[in-house]
Amino acid sequence: MATTMDIQDRIAKLNWERQPQGLYEPIAYTMASGGKRVRPQLAILACEMFGGNTEEVAPAAIALEIFHNFTLLHDDVMDKADVRRGRPTVHVKWNDNTAILSGDQMLIEAYKQLSSVPASKLPKALQLFNQMATEICEGQQYDVDFEAQDHVEIADYLMMIRLKTAVLLATALKMGAYIANADEKAQEALYQFGINIGLAFQIQDDILDVWGDPATFGKAVGGDISCNKKTFVYLTALQKANGECAQELHMWYSQVNEDNTAKIAAVKGIFEQLDVRSACEKQVDEYTTHAMELLATLPQNAATEQLRQLAMKLHNRKL
Amino acid sequence: MATTMDIQDRIAKLNWERQPQGLYEPIAYTMASGGKRVRPQLAILACEMFGGNTEEVAPAAIALEIFHNFTLLHDDVMDKADVRRGRPTVHVKWNDNTAILSGDQMLIEAYKQLSSVPASKLPKALQLFNQMATEICEGQQYDVDFEAQDHVEIADYLMMIRLKTAVLLATALKMGAYIANADEKAQEALYQFGINIGLAFQIQDDILDVWGDPATFGKAVGGDISCNKKTFVYLTALQKANGECAQELHMWYSQVNEDNTAKIAAVKGIFEQLDVRSACEKQVDEYTTHAMELLATLPQNAATEQLRQLAMKLHNRKL
Repeated sequence: MATTMDIQDRIAKLNWERQPQGLYEPIAYTMASGGKRVRPQLAILACEMFGGNTEEVAPAAIALEIFHNFTLLHDDVMDKADVRRGRPTVHVKWNDNTAILSGDQMLIEAYKQLSSVPASKLPKALQLFNQMATEICEGQQYDVDFEAQDHVEIADYLMMIRLKTAVLLATALKMGAYIANADEKAQEALYQFGINIGLAFQIQDDILDVWGDPATFGKAVGGDISCNKKTFVYLTALQKANGECAQELHMWYSQVNEDNTAKIAAVKGIFEQLDVRSACEKQVDEYTTHAMELLATLPQNAATEQLRQLAMKLHNRKL
Repeated sequence: MATTMDIQDRIAKLNWERQPQGLYEPIAYTMASGGKRVRPQLAILACEMFGGNTEEVAPAAIALEIFHNFTLLHDDVMDKADVRRGRPTVHVKWNDNTAILSGDQMLIEAYKQLSSVPASKLPKALQLFNQMATEICEGQQYDVDFEAQDHVEIADYLMMIRLKTAVLLATALKMGAYIANADEKAQEALYQFGINIGLAFQIQDDILDVWGDPATFGKAVGGDISCNKKTFVYLTALQKANGECAQELHMWYSQVNEDNTAKIAAVKGIFEQLDVRSACEKQVDEYTTHAMELLATLPQNAATEQLRQLAMKLHNRKL
């Protein structure tokens, strides 16, 4: 049986020493950059929770992790992001074309892993995976669209982060439950648990971008403000702001500066004046609470407890 | 039963009117740009040849065509190609990011189509597809690598075009034969038939780039010479050239010019002086002959005859 430890080990030991090196080296580099391997762990725990054979879900768990890293690779090209997990991104270390082609190959590698799911469960597993992959691309497109839009509704933003972030966590969980032969209602509850922790996670990320500790956040604090990203924090502020204050926010968010120190301080000041932080934290709490309620309807065992802890750890990331 | 006509019709009728438009419109644009739909036709004909149910192979046939168009889309970004089939490429009409993301979604759409292959045949169909997709990415990487290399062996070039071009045709054929329950030996013969017509096709393309009729070739004649592409024609010339002549070729191939009229004329002159064209045409003939020999070992019926004609049509493209 594959434990959550085993799966991390297997991901670390995937063999990328293949020819042509130019294709596989950037994949090895991307996969070696770590991360918490949350998605494969979720798939394994969901399978354990229903007493399933975790060996059967292992290929899908690995596929989900490769897929996740593929999205980061291509997103970094599209966002022109230079650093990921403290290291230069692939398109910086190599070039754009390498990032595109090695990314494509990673997507194919994900499907190669997935193809080792037991044959009887492959059609449904493939369908779940395809649905998720499609929704993530759609989420990424909405994210791009919203950048160019003057006005974004909070509901639209939530739809976008559900697609772009939450669906992958939710699918990892549902995949595990499906492979373990859980009934459809349980699969769906676990899927919704994933959606709720995913939404909480992303909004927490939006909060951390403003109020996070630079030492532990891993990204530059204020990055979203610098690039005028319409995050949950920003959209909540706009909703709370009166005419003058809203205009001030709009003014700052129409600027593209070399040095954003003043802008970050000013926008952060407006957010604090409007008491946006507590409103956002309340939203994170609500999603987390709802997630826990969903989990409480499912079998209670060691795996459930680990899922609960994992969700709390995502929630309690250092501010 | 799905005929080769039906499959073209189904590809034309795929519904891309989905949200977000920014993701799906470039896919509709790419898929509407036509082409001869050779790959799905090969899959259908191979299935017919062995008396298979062509409805079973139809999803894979459509998947192969979407995959093929995905590779063109991403290749055009990487090659900075502005025109494809007489129309602006996606990254020109939209932008690079759109081409990357809509391309990713096309790759996923190919797998979505593939997932409708009968469940009992899905594992093997997925494995064939994954193998092919991997080899095509590898071929593209070798193509990139060879650009930067001083010296390329003809054998390496043949390996590269086998991966980049021939494997897709061969897999389409093998897929059809597999779905029709043909025995492994027949599947393999048909696969090799595809490899041989693929190699012949690509070398013919290299010939057409030099001696093609601009009115019918579809691309600018001399394009490979302009960008110093080490094609079969060029590598054959190098092999035949004595010291002085080889140096002259190297000299031209180290230039990057705005206007390539003189370069194209000079290099073409060297090719003709070395009688390269007949050597290349001989190679095309050999691959085509071998393909026909392989086809002769297989069941002879209307589908076989159509495959023979299709192969001859690819071979006899206007010079």
